[in-house]
Amino acid sequence: MAEVESIGADLGGTKLAVGVVDGRPEALWQEEVPSKGYSQERVVNLLAQQINKAHQARPTASSVGVGIPATLDHETGHAISTVNLDLEDLPIREMLSRETRLPVAIDNDGNLAMLAEALYGAARGTSNALLLTIGTGIGGGIWLNGEIYRGSTGAGAELGHLVVEIDGHPCQGNCPNRGCVEAMASGTAIGRHGREAAEREPDSLLGRRLAAGEEIDARAVNEAATAGDQAAIGAIDLAGHYLGQALVGLSNVFQPEVIVLGGGAIAFGELLIAPARREVEKFALKPMNETKVVAAELGPSAGMIGAAAYGRMEAEAA
Amino acid sequence: MAEVESIGADLGGTKLAVGVVDGRPEALWQEEVPSKGYSQERVVNLLAQQINKAHQARPTASSVGVGIPATLDHETGHAISTVNLDLEDLPIREMLSRETRLPVAIDNDGNLAMLAEALYGAARGTSNALLLTIGTGIGGGIWLNGEIYRGSTGAGAELGHLVVEIDGHPCQGNCPNRGCVEAMASGTAIGRHGREAAEREPDSLLGRRLAAGEEIDARAVNEAATAGDQAAIGAIDLAGHYLGQALVGLSNVFQPEVIVLGGGAIAFGELLIAPARREVEKFALKPMNETKVVAAELGPSAGMIGAAAYGRMEAEAA
Repeated sequence: MAEVESIGADLGGTKLAVGVVDGRPEALWQEEVPSKGYSQERVVNLLAQQINKAHQARPTASSVGVGIPATLDHETGHAISTVNLDLEDLPIREMLSRETRLPVAIDNDGNLAMLAEALYGAARGTSNALLLTIGTGIGGGIWLNGEIYRGSTGAGAELGHLVVEIDGHPCQGNCPNRGCVEAMASGTAIGRHGREAAEREPDSLLGRRLAAGEEIDARAVNEAATAGDQAAIGAIDLAGHYLGQALVGLSNVFQPEVIVLGGGAIAFGELLIAPARREVEKFALKPMNETKVVAAELGPSAGMIGAAAYGRMEAEAA
Repeated sequence: MAEVESIGADLGGTKLAVGVVDGRPEALWQEEVPSKGYSQERVVNLLAQQINKAHQARPTASSVGVGIPATLDHETGHAISTVNLDLEDLPIREMLSRETRLPVAIDNDGNLAMLAEALYGAARGTSNALLLTIGTGIGGGIWLNGEIYRGSTGAGAELGHLVVEIDGHPCQGNCPNRGCVEAMASGTAIGRHGREAAEREPDSLLGRRLAAGEEIDARAVNEAATAGDQAAIGAIDLAGHYLGQALVGLSNVFQPEVIVLGGGAIAFGELLIAPARREVEKFALKPMNETKVVAAELGPSAGMIGAAAYGRMEAEAA
C-alpha cells in the first residue's frame, strides 16, 4: 500500500531538485532548477517557490523534507555554514515552514541520500553503512545501528572533509583546510585533474580540446574518457586513488558493511569506482578490506527521495 | 559502595599491564611486564600467567576483560589481525577462559580505553566522543550515543589507520598502507621525526646525542624537548600537525563533543596536544572547530581499567 505523499527537496551546489513521493523510491512529480551562485535570500525563495509548486501539483502531500549541503543545528533547524553555497547562520526550517504552511524537516543532504539508500537502495538491509555523494563537492552520510548518525548537534557526517593529503590542494568554498578528499576527488577536482592532464598531454583528446579553447570540467573529462582518451581516464583514475584512500580510512574506522558512492560524479561509473574499490581491498586492515564499495542505486534522485522520506518520518513522529 | 572486583589486562605493542579494580578507576593490584617481540604463543601464555597472578592476589575477582591491539570478531572473541604484535586468526577468548577458569571478555584495546575515559575520565558525561591512544602505534575507540561503537563484526575503530598523507611514509607492522596517522604521529613516528631533526641539526642537543651514538627514540626526543631543545620540540610539533589533521577529519565526520588523547605518547603533554588542538580550531568546518581536544585523565592505566570494567559488564550481562 502506498504511504502518505511527501515533498522532498534536495539543494545542491549547482541545482535544486524537488519531487513528491509516496513511500516508494519513485517520484510522482519532479522538477529540477539551477541554484548555482544564488544568494542566501534567493536560495530560500527558490526553495519555497519549488516546494509550493510541488504542493500544487500533488495537493495531498502533507509534509516536506529538505536536504541542504550545510552543517546544521538539528534542534533548531538552523543552517550553520555551508561549503559550496551562501548559507550562513540561517533559520531555514522556520523560514520554509512560514512560506509553505507545511511541516518542514531539514537535514544535511548527505544524511538524506544515505537514508534513501538505506531504506530503498544499495544499503538496504544493512546495520552499518556509509555514503559519499560526489558532485561539485563531496557530502556524506553515516548509517549506524540502523539510524542516521548526525553528530553531537546535527552537524555531523561531513565525510568530504576528511584529509587525505596533508598540506595538499586548498579545499573549496568555505572549508579552511587543504587536501580534503573533496579537494582531491570531487567533480570539481576531476575537472582540475583533467585540465592538468590536458596541459601535460597536448596531443590527447583532452589536450586538443583545451587547445581549441573548450572548458575542461568534469563533464568534458567524462566525455573524453568515454571516447577512450587515456589522459581523461588517468584524471579519473587519480581521483579514484584519492577517493579510495579516504575509503580505506573510513573502512578502518567504521568497518561498515558497505560504502555507497552517489552524486553526479557517479556518471564516471567504474572508471572512478573501480580504482577506489581496489584501494580498500589492497590497503585496509583485515577484515575491513572486505568492505563493499558500490554505486548508489537510486541515482541522482536519492537526495530528494531521502528528503521526502525524512519529512514524512518527522511529521509522523511529531 | 565498591562493585564486584574484576581483572583487566591491557596488551600493548611493548608491554602488558594487568590489574584488579572494583568499579572505581584505581587499581587494587597492578603489574606491568614487557611484551615486545613475543610470539603468539608466548603472548597468550604471558596473558594467562599474569591474569592468574592477579587472581591469586585478589581471589574475589570474578571476571576478566582483555584489551588487545587487534581487529577482532566480537561474536567469537577471535583476534583477526594485529599491526604491532604477532596475533593472527587466534581464538584468544577461548584460550584464556580455559587457562584462567574465569569468564573472559575480549575487546580492542582502544575501545576499552575509550570505555574507561567515558565511564570515569575525560569523556565522562558525553554522548559522543573519540579516543586515540598514541603509543608504539595509534589505537582508537568510538563512543556514540553512550555506547562503544565496534563496527559491523567488532573490528572497528582503527582510528590510527586513517590516511593523512597519501603515498606517505609506509605504515607499521601488518598495515599494508602508507601515510596513516599511525605512521606519522605515533611514538614510533616521533622517534623517526627526532632522528631526522638530529641529522638536519647536528648542533642541537638531539644532534649531539645522535653523534654520541645514542638511540634517538620517542623517549630521547621527550628528554631533549623537556631540556628545551628546539630540534626535539620541532619533531613533536610535526607529529602534532599530522595528528591534528587526522583530528580535523574525525571532527568533520563525527562532530564529537570531545576527542581524548591517551597512551604513552601523552608524556609529551601540550607539546603534542596543543598543535593538534590548534589544527582542529583552525581547519575543521563550523561548528566542528569547537570540538574539544584533551588529554586522557586516567593515564596509562586507562586500558586496564576499561578492560576490567568491560569484563565485569559482560559477566553481569551473561
